[in-house]
Amino acid sequence: MKFSVTVTLKKDVLDPQGKVVENTLDNLGFKNLKSIRQGKFFEIEINENDQEKAKNTVKEMCEKLLVNLIIEDYKINKL
Amino acid sequence: MKFSVTVTLKKDVLDPQGKVVENTLDNLGFKNLKSIRQGKFFEIEINENDQEKAKNTVKEMCEKLLVNLIIEDYKINKL
Repeated sequence: MKFSVTVTLKKDVLDPQGKVVENTLDNLGFKNLKSIRQGKFFEIEINENDQEKAKNTVKEMCEKLLVNLIIEDYKINKL
Repeated sequence: MKFSVTVTLKKDVLDPQGKVVENTLDNLGFKNLKSIRQGKFFEIEINENDQEKAKNTVKEMCEKLLVNLIIEDYKINKL
């Protein structure tokens, strides 16, 4: 069973990497860019047929390792 | 207009960062993990009301800066 996880910085957390990309895109001539924020993306495959169980395992992986809950949010999607 | 962009390594490209995460999750006791691959995620906001035009702008940003087309694939979604 396959899931995707997107990890983004919380709204009020500064995103210096995104800022650099934003400035670079502006320098490249993209003048209608309003904002860009960068995050992480994971594609996770689990050996588990019960969707509820598999999703809970992914959730546990996020909270134990993949996501820093103090500054980041995450979203899990079934693929 | 807001879009999300996910950038992933092509299927045959090695993902050392994902491998480290995979090993760490295994060490943490997640024995039913089959595979994990890591990618990038962008949330892009564009000052443009025409959806077609906005999407083309995002596509151009991807191909000029955000994505290394030799080793990466990308997917654009409207948010």
